[in-house]
Amino acid sequence: MMDPKLIKQAMEYRQMIDALMGDFEFADVVLLNGNIVNVITREIYKSDLAIKGKYILGVCDSDKLIGPKTLVIDVTGRYLAPGFIDSHMHFESSMLTISEFSRLSIPSGTTTLVADPHEIGNALGGVGMKAMADEAGVVPNHVSLVVPALVPDCPSLETAGVDISSKDMVDLLNYPNIIGVGELQGFSNAQHVYNNTPDIITDLVASTTYARSIGKVVDGNAPELFGRELAAHIIAAGGTCSCHETTTKAESVEKLRQGVYVFMREGSTQKNMAECIRAITEEKMDSRRAVLATDDMVAEDLEKLGHMNEIVKRTIAQGVNPVEAIQMVTINPATYFKLEDRGALLPGKLADIAVISDLQNMVVDAVFIDGKLAAANGEMLIDIPKYTYPDTVKNSVKFKTMSAADLEIKAEGSKAKVNVIGLIPDQNLSDALEAELPVKNGAVQADTKQDVVPLICIERYGRNGNIGKGFVKGFGIENGAMAESIAHDTHNLLVMGTNYNDMAIAANRVKEIGGGIALVSNGRVIDELRLPVGGLITDELTGHEVSDKIRELEDNARTKLGCKVHAPFMHLSFLGLSTSPKWKITDMGIVDVENFKVLSAVQE
Amino acid sequence: MMDPKLIKQAMEYRQMIDALMGDFEFADVVLLNGNIVNVITREIYKSDLAIKGKYILGVCDSDKLIGPKTLVIDVTGRYLAPGFIDSHMHFESSMLTISEFSRLSIPSGTTTLVADPHEIGNALGGVGMKAMADEAGVVPNHVSLVVPALVPDCPSLETAGVDISSKDMVDLLNYPNIIGVGELQGFSNAQHVYNNTPDIITDLVASTTYARSIGKVVDGNAPELFGRELAAHIIAAGGTCSCHETTTKAESVEKLRQGVYVFMREGSTQKNMAECIRAITEEKMDSRRAVLATDDMVAEDLEKLGHMNEIVKRTIAQGVNPVEAIQMVTINPATYFKLEDRGALLPGKLADIAVISDLQNMVVDAVFIDGKLAAANGEMLIDIPKYTYPDTVKNSVKFKTMSAADLEIKAEGSKAKVNVIGLIPDQNLSDALEAELPVKNGAVQADTKQDVVPLICIERYGRNGNIGKGFVKGFGIENGAMAESIAHDTHNLLVMGTNYNDMAIAANRVKEIGGGIALVSNGRVIDELRLPVGGLITDELTGHEVSDKIRELEDNARTKLGCKVHAPFMHLSFLGLSTSPKWKITDMGIVDVENFKVLSAVQE
Repeated sequence: MMDPKLIKQAMEYRQMIDALMGDFEFADVVLLNGNIVNVITREIYKSDLAIKGKYILGVCDSDKLIGPKTLVIDVTGRYLAPGFIDSHMHFESSMLTISEFSRLSIPSGTTTLVADPHEIGNALGGVGMKAMADEAGVVPNHVSLVVPALVPDCPSLETAGVDISSKDMVDLLNYPNIIGVGELQGFSNAQHVYNNTPDIITDLVASTTYARSIGKVVDGNAPELFGRELAAHIIAAGGTCSCHETTTKAESVEKLRQGVYVFMREGSTQKNMAECIRAITEEKMDSRRAVLATDDMVAEDLEKLGHMNEIVKRTIAQGVNPVEAIQMVTINPATYFKLEDRGALLPGKLADIAVISDLQNMVVDAVFIDGKLAAANGEMLIDIPKYTYPDTVKNSVKFKTMSAADLEIKAEGSKAKVNVIGLIPDQNLSDALEAELPVKNGAVQADTKQDVVPLICIERYGRNGNIGKGFVKGFGIENGAMAESIAHDTHNLLVMGTNYNDMAIAANRVKEIGGGIALVSNGRVIDELRLPVGGLITDELTGHEVSDKIRELEDNARTKLGCKVHAPFMHLSFLGLSTSPKWKITDMGIVDVENFKVLSAVQE
Repeated sequence: MMDPKLIKQAMEYRQMIDALMGDFEFADVVLLNGNIVNVITREIYKSDLAIKGKYILGVCDSDKLIGPKTLVIDVTGRYLAPGFIDSHMHFESSMLTISEFSRLSIPSGTTTLVADPHEIGNALGGVGMKAMADEAGVVPNHVSLVVPALVPDCPSLETAGVDISSKDMVDLLNYPNIIGVGELQGFSNAQHVYNNTPDIITDLVASTTYARSIGKVVDGNAPELFGRELAAHIIAAGGTCSCHETTTKAESVEKLRQGVYVFMREGSTQKNMAECIRAITEEKMDSRRAVLATDDMVAEDLEKLGHMNEIVKRTIAQGVNPVEAIQMVTINPATYFKLEDRGALLPGKLADIAVISDLQNMVVDAVFIDGKLAAANGEMLIDIPKYTYPDTVKNSVKFKTMSAADLEIKAEGSKAKVNVIGLIPDQNLSDALEAELPVKNGAVQADTKQDVVPLICIERYGRNGNIGKGFVKGFGIENGAMAESIAHDTHNLLVMGTNYNDMAIAANRVKEIGGGIALVSNGRVIDELRLPVGGLITDELTGHEVSDKIRELEDNARTKLGCKVHAPFMHLSFLGLSTSPKWKITDMGIVDVENFKVLSAVQE
């Protein structure tokens, strides 16, 4: 009747019952006299908590559960909460492997991460996502993936490394550690997609219907959708979804009313929680579908600020009851994701526990994972080996070596009127601008006085050799070029600079190092970061080393290239995001997002 | 990739998206300007609600969803709530088929019933439960079954029609309309079972671990369990369970804290809601795991009082916010049972809707099921054909014809000291008494002055011919006998009376009619009710006819046999329940429940 895994679990359960009822089995660990944070009843009260194996044995008076070998720890004065869940995040944003991310996030109380490997999926498809799912299977914390049902986001406007559609779902959704479909980026802009590429909707529905039929979840992604459009998005997701791109109170109210799990985002880049939480604090809504998530976290913030504990702290600071805020990172997402073995401190659940000394400030003293003390006082106590990815997910940058001439944007005469993407600091949105630029030897030149320079997107997977060309205003770059293989969401190669020669050198350097970031000034590579895994992630550096490296690159971009915007690599990478208005760059050229069409760099 | 059912669903979803976004598809039905009872946010606000096919299209301004063929109904002033769920009930208690029960319960707003076919399971095993699951598949409302993992409850103390254990779970749990394991009756009395029949626990854990592994639910049944014993029960259920036998506030608080879904019972016989709900009204606990259920309902109450609407009304009367009370019969149980397609009025969910004119009094005006108007003003508007069960579940009463001598309780001398089960009106619990009775011709005689008469349990499935003998005090019977094939939980034949001759005639008459109830006075059958389906259910009478018949039988028991306790057949049937203290009767004799042993009728 049962497979070996089930027999093992049944035996563990049976042994737990012996420990509870008999007099020959005992708890492995008893935490004495804690303040239990009960996320079912929204209460705090005193109790012991007993652990056997990887499970919670009971949250009850545990005197009789203590045997000769039981480890007894007095936790008087400390709070015991379920380990925290980050419900929507991309490891790629940190440039770290799951192992290195976990090393930073576990000590702050995060025991479960649900990642959307959307970036590596665009670069490498199933091969990349399965490689990440494999790593998820070996880390000591609990990592699950939700995978994209559509790659690229806009098939008619861009080229990804691999195309993904409903045909891939049986293979992907039955792979270990993959629990559902990730953000439905392809149906975010609902009316536009319906009008322009309705086949995408048919294909998405096929994927999500299948996902639901095998008990998997489907994340949504419904920025600025209300009423009928939101209903269509929810139905496309198979009837229940999340949204992690809700930015206003009105949207938060609307989505909670429509049954959407609102993943209130508070990460390194986007901070929407304070606005979203007003649906709870001001409208007094039942918060069972309110969830906290980071979306994108950089290593430095994990090191300096913490992770979900920090977000819970900020949520409490918005006036939310501390236990209710903790519900948003425990039982609420566990319910959404059908992670029935965790999310609350209850008999038979995994013993994933955050031991907290200061609830208002969410100071996490110690963390248990699967019944083992995994971290204390900010330090890991268990070993997480460095993880090296297989060659199958490396060397993903395959375009032919570029010359300056390949990159040149051609025009006749001495001046040209050009279309310019306007950078808006700290936003994914961009402006639609124009400028008049000098033309030399048939090529439009950068004009640093106007802060307008060429911005080029090179299809980097060896599929069609596309080179999409345009201009950008807003970086303040004064000389040289920067290139990177991070370019949301297709992650082609983006290069921007004051002259085509430096741009070609920068692009080629990223290719040579197998993906990453390169800075070039006066014909010379002045700094670089290798990101060998899909051109997105390093499996060579720790989180600390990545933070240092990024800081150094940013310093060099500022001091040696004259870049004025902060976090220039992140800002550059989001100029590729073809789903957020107004204008973006893909390998097909400047994309007019609102009108679903490609524009030429030089106006006719 | 997808089976035909999924393709159909995907096409329905795709068509809904067309209705929402395009201009050629429209809603089938629009309910204009309702007061939406939102069980996610716990709010009421005005909105339209649009339906397409069997699904809710949207809860939003629906002007643009109205096409030339759309049925538009103005519901101004009325409340729209999700259809109600009864989370724990036994059809057998009503003696009705699912079809007849549904005919009575649908007009009051109940659209989903989760039944535990525990009684027919004891009588007929898988054959009986599958026959019921088959009927569940043809009624217009939504009926799911949760099946027992252990039959009989106490294998060492009683004989059921069929034995059920973990070996049967693969077959049963994968049968259509069976969604999980029913009440864990066999591990209610945790410490006793652990001490006396620990193998039962091992077998239960095998069943529940398997059930969990295929995504099924497991109900618990944990009356009076706290702390370690409750934890053991929860773990035996695989980590999450319900309990529908919680009777005190302290128990309700404890169980909610331990994550148990507390099914606050309020049926025809047991009424525990008012006590259980104090955990919410007085302790202000988060009520997400509070659920209302009936357990046992008789047809007369369904007709006269209503069903879940009546229970919600009573819950509101205890001081619970009306929307919170409605959550307890909608989203809370839908979450517990993983019935993701219902429980809230949201896009893509089944259009199961209760239209309510008076929220405080829960007056249900109309009911939609799967988008169809199923009932209005208390009357069914759709046809439910009378359902006839196959012969495989009939003729279940198979004992050899009894003579008075077979039933006699033997003793020597002229008087005998005997063990007597003391009836306690309106409780499953009973007393342990003794009495001195006259002996005539070697047989102990009834003594109506002491109100003590023989009570006999005949194994009725033709398995071993056991005849369990004892005495009962408390019915006030003055002459004749009554017999019935309803005897919790094994449903052997129970017969009680003032003389062995009438008792034999009554027992034999129940056998002749294929199961049911018979009253005998002075050697003559004076009234009877046929219950051909498993000896428990009639597929010949409607709910109204059953109510009338029971009333007639009760009148005759009172006027012609002199019975003084009300509902004598129900009281008699619970004298077989070997899991509730103190003394009960099974086919093995008087069972001392607390000490797990069988007593002789006559003291040694």
